Amino acid sequence: MITVTRRYRFCASHRLHSELLSDAENARVFGKCNNPYGHGHDYVLDISVTGELNATTGLVVRLPDLDRLVKTEVLAGFAYRNLNQDVAEFTELVPTTENVALVIADRLRKGWRDYFPYSSARLSGISIQETERNSFEVVISQSAESAPSFISKLNESVIVNA
Amino acid sequence: MITVTRRYRFCASHRLHSELLSDAENARVFGKCNNPYGHGHDYVLDISVTGELNATTGLVVRLPDLDRLVKTEVLAGFAYRNLNQDVAEFTELVPTTENVALVIADRLRKGWRDYFPYSSARLSGISIQETERNSFEVVISQSAESAPSFISKLNESVIVNA
Amino acid sequence: MITVTRRYRFCASHRLHSELLSDAENARVFGKCNNPYGHGHDYVLDISVTGELNATTGLVVRLPDLDRLVKTEVLAGFAYRNLNQDVAEFTELVPTTENVALVIADRLRKGWRDYFPYSSARLSGISIQETERNSFEVVISQSAESAPSFISKLNESVIVNA
Amino acid sequence: MITVTRRYRFCASHRLHSELLSDAENARVFGKCNNPYGHGHDYVLDISVTGELNATTGLVVRLPDLDRLVKTEVLAGFAYRNLNQDVAEFTELVPTTENVALVIADRLRKGWRDYFPYSSARLSGISIQETERNSFEVVISQSAESAPSFISKLNESVIVNA
Amino acid sequence: MITVTRRYRFCASHRLHSELLSDAENARVFGKCNNPYGHGHDYVLDISVTGELNATTGLVVRLPDLDRLVKTEVLAGFAYRNLNQDVAEFTELVPTTENVALVIADRLRKGWRDYFPYSSARLSGISIQETERNSFEVVISQSAESAPSFISKLNESVIVNA
Amino acid sequence: MITVTRRYRFCASHRLHSELLSDAENARVFGKCNNPYGHGHDYVLDISVTGELNATTGLVVRLPDLDRLVKTEVLAGFAYRNLNQDVAEFTELVPTTENVALVIADRLRKGWRDYFPYSSARLSGISIQETERNSFEVVISQSAESAPSFISKLNESVIVNA
Repeated sequence: MITVTRRYRFCASHRLHSELLSDAENARVFGKCNNPYGHGHDYVLDISVTGELNATTGLVVRLPDLDRLVKTEVLAGFAYRNLNQDVAEFTELVPTTENVALVIADRLRKGWRDYFPYSSARLSGISIQETERNSFEVVISQSAESAPSFISKLNESVIVNA
Repeated sequence: MITVTRRYRFCASHRLHSELLSDAENARVFGKCNNPYGHGHDYVLDISVTGELNATTGLVVRLPDLDRLVKTEVLAGFAYRNLNQDVAEFTELVPTTENVALVIADRLRKGWRDYFPYSSARLSGISIQETERNSFEVVISQSAESAPSFISKLNESVIVNA
Repeated sequence: MITVTRRYRFCASHRLHSELLSDAENARVFGKCNNPYGHGHDYVLDISVTGELNATTGLVVRLPDLDRLVKTEVLAGFAYRNLNQDVAEFTELVPTTENVALVIADRLRKGWRDYFPYSSARLSGISIQETERNSFEVVISQSAESAPSFISKLNESVIVNA
Repeated sequence: MITVTRRYRFCASHRLHSELLSDAENARVFGKCNNPYGHGHDYVLDISVTGELNATTGLVVRLPDLDRLVKTEVLAGFAYRNLNQDVAEFTELVPTTENVALVIADRLRKGWRDYFPYSSARLSGISIQETERNSFEVVISQSAESAPSFISKLNESVIVNA
Repeated sequence: MITVTRRYRFCASHRLHSELLSDAENARVFGKCNNPYGHGHDYVLDISVTGELNATTGLVVRLPDLDRLVKTEVLAGFAYRNLNQDVAEFTELVPTTENVALVIADRLRKGWRDYFPYSSARLSGISIQETERNSFEVVISQSAESAPSFISKLNESVIVNA
Repeated sequence: MITVTRRYRFCASHRLHSELLSDAENARVFGKCNNPYGHGHDYVLDISVTGELNATTGLVVRLPDLDRLVKTEVLAGFAYRNLNQDVAEFTELVPTTENVALVIADRLRKGWRDYFPYSSARLSGISIQETERNSFEVVISQSAESAPSFISKLNESVIVNA
């Protein structure tokens, strides 16, 4: 078993603001990240894939296939974008990097079988650096693979909370 | 003569769009950076100061003084901000990182004597990384110190061009 | 479940020398790190916190709270210090980076509830880079949370050994 | 329990090409990495060792011992070399970085007891960066320590496959 | 005047060996880099362009134009290649990174006017990292722009030397 | 003309304190760096050498020769040391990184001809990073090569000042 991790980068802007909180609460919780016109980051996205080697090729997966998955399902919609305005999931979710990580994990899990129909390799983790100081990691255990999406679970909690 | 370079970081968002160009020209010139809702970066800002050592202290300048200058004149207005909306200079200038570098150079040159009234050390350069791939450097020669501001020169060119 | 890792830095000096060993043994075990007047490092400290997202805010913890914990319990006493002379735990323990990691883990575990009284997020790991080549990681499993402190365990071993 | 990770570097060249595949299949699977005269990388190799601290010295292992192991068993044969031509294991295995990681893991596991005869610390992981974008990690669990070598298992699969 | 520096990366292999030297001299001069089957690196290539800003766009050059120049004239022939076998200039020149830098500088200077026909910006420098420890920089002064190519000068010296 | 820059690293400790200043002045000027027992850093030292290529070998200098110079004249006395106690020059000079840079420049200039007796390449610059935020650069122009040592000039100033 080997874990291959490939790095992608994208820049985007966001504003941290929750419709469920008052202006004062938003300011207190999110600080400068609540500034009205937003700010941005150069996100570094590490995607981890775990599996056995193909004994003939010595590869876990072909990286161009992983590139197509990540570009189509994530980068095409996130890069050079305003996450609040341009990414559907963030009409309901605050685009904290925690939520960005879960949304990306969900998109990649959903697309996985289309891009790797015959591979026994699986998506095992996602790590995203917001800045050089802050990173956010989602470990995807084997048992969690058939679990409902991270997003729907979050949306339900939001509705219950609201 | 020694050059001391100190690194600062700030995140901000911007949109590359010139009022002097048509929408089609803006799209052609700026590509994805012209996306309507903007995107953002984690800018890395290196400030260089050149001078002789103070023979008693072995220092060129005291770095806390440099920190106060950079924080007050630059970071307070740029960090966690939308450059187009929140920074006065960019109501007329496109916030390319080239222009961001010149604006920062001008602000630091103007404030220099207030923060370093007795020092013979001078601001000798500014370098700003937009992403890990793109950086922009302004070298400030000794003779350029009494030159008019970079910004006013740019504004004049814009007017002539318009 | 998401793990947030935040990076801190501090510089300090230390000398590796054990009172339980002869001078010759100290020289053999610690090599140049046993040089009598000490040397120093720029330590890079990564603190990992694991928990569920708050569904309203999209955050695991508020990072300013984590900053206060780390600054008060660790950085205030370690940064710009001589670990052997200035940090109480190292009157008995050799300040190897292994021990520095355990001492920091203990301090953060002890302070955790004061800084995060209502959060279900927990301290899940500490990693410290001594140099760009050497790093030291403590994984704190959920079951280890009620365990006695790492330090007291070490001190007991030292006494037994001595 | 602490995990110490020490970083090594070596440059080498390789060509990805399998004798079990046709030229067209090799080109399709390996792309530019199949170019006939090969290419190369600066590999970054992180070796992780996990164990309890020695209570007297505050060390998990002495790093000079680890250096001797890694230099003798790996770097002496890999650095400044062509992996296909100069490293015995790659006469049968394609020198993908996945296979390079397994070969290194095997060599270090075999040599471990000679270099650390009395230590309870164990080799717990190997991570190798091929480029700044691609890294490959082998986690060595405690139960896997008595398992047959990674290489022999691979060779058997290759034979079955052929 | 601003200098924009953009980073490119390519991996390649090489062997340091001069036909003008005996085997013993080659071994003495180039050490392990003379190993018969070669080795390789992940080269990091920084291209610097200096000029005035376009007052309307706020750009020195459009980076996609620079990308096309570098990809066509350099990366297409160097990436995933064996420099000795695959790059014409190195049939006569030893592919030290010094020579690689000069060859790249020459190729970019020759192609410059085709890619930037109307721009007053000029190629002002090339820096190439062979490893994280070794980098090689060519500064191209304004007066050197009409100078004969770096390569032809080298070839002449070789002939004189031989 | 090419400039080759090679990177070295060393860890050391220091305390910033001037005998020419009162305790209160020392505390005001040096802040935490004046803490009585000192602290330390992992210094990153970049040495730049400029010259024409040897047309036969394609090298500016042989790096093993540079390594011997830097190890003998600098690293042997600085690495794993307390700069105030262990390095002769700092009995009179405060070991600010500015002074460390000048002392290193002087030592390398003095030793240059012994290590490169026939080379036309010259020491053209020294850059030292104290932390990831602060770096200090000495540019050595061709005309400065016959100048008196940086240290003696500093000592004279100190005497005049005292």
